[in-house]
Amino acid sequence: MSEDNKAPSPRTVMRRYSWLAKYDRETINSILDASLLCHVGYVIDGQPYVTPTNFWRMDGHVYWHGSSASRMLRGQAKGIPVCFTVTHLDGLVIARSAFNHNVNFRSLMALGTAEVLGETEKRDALKGFCDRLMTGLWEHARQPTEKQWKVTHVLRMPLNEVSAKVRTGPPIDDENDYEHDSWAGVIPLHTTTGKIEPDPQLRSGIAIPEFVKQFRFSSN
Amino acid sequence: MSEDNKAPSPRTVMRRYSWLAKYDRETINSILDASLLCHVGYVIDGQPYVTPTNFWRMDGHVYWHGSSASRMLRGQAKGIPVCFTVTHLDGLVIARSAFNHNVNFRSLMALGTAEVLGETEKRDALKGFCDRLMTGLWEHARQPTEKQWKVTHVLRMPLNEVSAKVRTGPPIDDENDYEHDSWAGVIPLHTTTGKIEPDPQLRSGIAIPEFVKQFRFSSN
Repeated sequence: MSEDNKAPSPRTVMRRYSWLAKYDRETINSILDASLLCHVGYVIDGQPYVTPTNFWRMDGHVYWHGSSASRMLRGQAKGIPVCFTVTHLDGLVIARSAFNHNVNFRSLMALGTAEVLGETEKRDALKGFCDRLMTGLWEHARQPTEKQWKVTHVLRMPLNEVSAKVRTGPPIDDENDYEHDSWAGVIPLHTTTGKIEPDPQLRSGIAIPEFVKQFRFSSN
Repeated sequence: MSEDNKAPSPRTVMRRYSWLAKYDRETINSILDASLLCHVGYVIDGQPYVTPTNFWRMDGHVYWHGSSASRMLRGQAKGIPVCFTVTHLDGLVIARSAFNHNVNFRSLMALGTAEVLGETEKRDALKGFCDRLMTGLWEHARQPTEKQWKVTHVLRMPLNEVSAKVRTGPPIDDENDYEHDSWAGVIPLHTTTGKIEPDPQLRSGIAIPEFVKQFRFSSN
């Protein structure tokens, strides 16, 4: 799960870490679409900040929203240089030597410039977010008032400069270590949805809507 | 899940977002100790980078390791200004109005300067990491060779400037919206361990060790 400055040879990578740097659009999209959470990095007066936020993917861009826009935009007239990172931690990999312990993961890093959307694009984007999350969610709820729209910001960044890394499978041990009596293997980690919790203030007789019942989230 | 530049009044916070900015050490430690993954932000030539990595907490510091040290250290003689962020996404909060949809989460942001550990401290820290993760993990595996130690870097940052945010519970709707017929509630998200996967290359007759069997991870 490290970022080598100097890329090792493919052979070294396969043997050593069993991860591959992947750049194909399908892998990138699948990592994005399996996640609800990103970490956005930006710089203010030389200090890095990393803010967690929900995001969604549409039309070759990633989108996120929040009042963070105001903080990120401080002193940035022409867009905000950001690093957009998404990570799935998929398992703990226990090897026969301490140096070869590892984790299974899928991660993605996109560099670029984020822009704040205008009024029309903002509204389309948020509607798209709700309906991407759960079909019917946007129509389900009362629409925002003009005052609420005003304090809502949406940022967007094109997915141009993107790298992804994926590690899967069992540990890769040094050849001599395979003779040892140590156990080796993987403890998988999964993120899933739990039992739905209706609002205690819900008026009586209001059933859980189908789109909520049918919502399934699984990180892998 | 947004970072307001100007802190709202406590009353507004309770009503509007139902989150609280929390700074007590107990909350901070509990968020850290329930996570295996952090996102570290740093700056190279004005460009922000956000790298996911495993971490651990010891003695009022957070520690992480990896060859990322070499990249982060480029041009930074006296430590690396970083933002260290940990996030748990605990649920999707569906409200009666679109503006009040939210997420339940626990997040923590620590600002500071990371330092690369020297040889002795590095070895103690990695042993501590393994045994914090699973008691017995360090002794289980073959110890690193001197060559392996050489390419292993550990970074450490004191937990001095830390802020945490926590949102829990049902949606907070505008007063008038409680009369609506819309359903409202929470879809919880959980991260847990799956079925242990022994290495297919495991020699026959090697049982899963007790410390692996007993390992439980739950983000909440």
